Amino acid sequence: MITKVGILGYGNLGRGVEEAVKRNEDQVLKAVYTRRDPASIKINTPGAEVKSVSELDSGHEDIEVLIICGGSATDLPEMTPKYAALYSVIDSFDTHANIPQHFANVDKAAKNAGTTALISCGWDPGMFSLNRVYAHSVLPDGRDYTFWGRGVSQGHSDAIRRIEGVKDARQYTVPIEAALDKVRSGSNPELTTREKHLRECWVVAEENADKARIEEEIKTMPNYFADYDTTVNFISEEELKRDHAGLPHGGSVIYTGATGDGSNKHVIEYSLKLDSNPEFTGSVLAAYARAVDRLNKEDRFGCITVLDVAPAYLSPLSPEEQRAHLL
Amino acid sequence: MITKVGILGYGNLGRGVEEAVKRNEDQVLKAVYTRRDPASIKINTPGAEVKSVSELDSGHEDIEVLIICGGSATDLPEMTPKYAALYSVIDSFDTHANIPQHFANVDKAAKNAGTTALISCGWDPGMFSLNRVYAHSVLPDGRDYTFWGRGVSQGHSDAIRRIEGVKDARQYTVPIEAALDKVRSGSNPELTTREKHLRECWVVAEENADKARIEEEIKTMPNYFADYDTTVNFISEEELKRDHAGLPHGGSVIYTGATGDGSNKHVIEYSLKLDSNPEFTGSVLAAYARAVDRLNKEDRFGCITVLDVAPAYLSPLSPEEQRAHLL
Repeated sequence: MITKVGILGYGNLGRGVEEAVKRNEDQVLKAVYTRRDPASIKINTPGAEVKSVSELDSGHEDIEVLIICGGSATDLPEMTPKYAALYSVIDSFDTHANIPQHFANVDKAAKNAGTTALISCGWDPGMFSLNRVYAHSVLPDGRDYTFWGRGVSQGHSDAIRRIEGVKDARQYTVPIEAALDKVRSGSNPELTTREKHLRECWVVAEENADKARIEEEIKTMPNYFADYDTTVNFISEEELKRDHAGLPHGGSVIYTGATGDGSNKHVIEYSLKLDSNPEFTGSVLAAYARAVDRLNKEDRFGCITVLDVAPAYLSPLSPEEQRAHLL
Repeated sequence: MITKVGILGYGNLGRGVEEAVKRNEDQVLKAVYTRRDPASIKINTPGAEVKSVSELDSGHEDIEVLIICGGSATDLPEMTPKYAALYSVIDSFDTHANIPQHFANVDKAAKNAGTTALISCGWDPGMFSLNRVYAHSVLPDGRDYTFWGRGVSQGHSDAIRRIEGVKDARQYTVPIEAALDKVRSGSNPELTTREKHLRECWVVAEENADKARIEEEIKTMPNYFADYDTTVNFISEEELKRDHAGLPHGGSVIYTGATGDGSNKHVIEYSLKLDSNPEFTGSVLAAYARAVDRLNKEDRFGCITVLDVAPAYLSPLSPEEQRAHLL
């Protein structure tokens, strides 16, 4: 079975999905939909079209799953319910506090339309969520810890770029080894925000900018940096391009639990080390596009998450092949 | 919903399942079924009965899921199809090469009877299988490696005990750090059996036994030891009891894959560090008993594996709670 895929939005994530679809022999990219001028965009897939996002409104585009690559703040809350009323869709909505509301909105649209809509896909939420649910279910007496990094936080990099006198910036989130070790020991520590992660900033300042003020503004920025130990390094534009061009990321979900009389401890750890955050996230979205297409053809309508999808639905292999080679 | 559970077999694994059921507030152990004299067995759950295995034959025992804790060599190929014709069941069948045949036998029995039967549950096959399928599905261009240990292999310990002059023995499977490092580097190495794991043996010899002969017999034993670097240590019975009483185990599934033009590498690692292999395996079986009961009530009849179960089915939490707290 070949799944016809559309991608909405052609930023880093959209390009990551495109690369992933190329590597999936049972998927074909039909079109990239954009809010920009389609003529201004050159994509990487021979045979696929670039179209205006307005083309989707007919509901008659020749796609089976639309992968929506927009931002969680303003794009997805509007886009996902809108397009779930027309196509089966996937998004990577990651504003944890608003997931219940987003789920309800998308569920209503998808159930009415007979589509299947999977929200909050990627690695966190996504692969990390799976591991939290598996671990809590297997060992009910336990606790999960999530660490992120070492990796580039695009939200934090953007926050630095908005400071006056900053030309460009890259922020790395770095898990603190001592905290990881404490968690892995099974001692179930209470850890503050500051004890779990460091924030490491690489900043290109404009000529004659007041670096001391920039550093102070970064370190005291509420929500983003004030609760962390933050280091600020000023570098040249060339150094930023040379040493910080990639978008690596990763992290770990560590779960420690007890069994029997409580004296037997167990540590479950799932970790990711990713050279490219958008390419890996795009790969997760593409794998779940396979599942969404299958579930839709089984009349599983409405909103779902990764927690509702049996692993077998993600694989291009038959159930027999999976049992023979991967079980 | 409360699930009424039966346990067939009261060895290490059966006791591990019993402890896990106790910690699951939505499960109650109704009875342990045994091939031994029920009067000879004292269990750990007030209110649960110990019964002869023959009581199961009526098909009228008051249980919703029977967790079959038998051996893969001779017990399970016979027991699981037999009892799947009467009850929803779970087993931990782990003879990889025979899974397709076992699946077919159990599937036929369960479909005819309207029961749900989950085979090959535990951590390998089981949690490790899930991680192989997820990783291959997300990153089709990649490769998985499985390492076991450091931990006690009961099969290998038994093999040593069968040697003349051996009173008792404990064998640890130990992953080789250099191999782990090579795999984690993403270099996709080809590794021989000998390069992946060591075998470490702790042996209590009978008085006047020929230790040199025992060591030679261990190290040259085909399938079990001949393909590995094996160390043999003779110790006293007291030392064995003092230092090697537990059944720890664990291991890692490491997957390395590429995206984009192939230059971006990703490492996915799932690892377990378990103080008690049977208690952890029992915990996995108990969590899947929850899923089997739910799936049976949704008329999902026949044989399934962990690959066919959506993670949400394993959790005692409602879908809303899972989305709010674990997604």
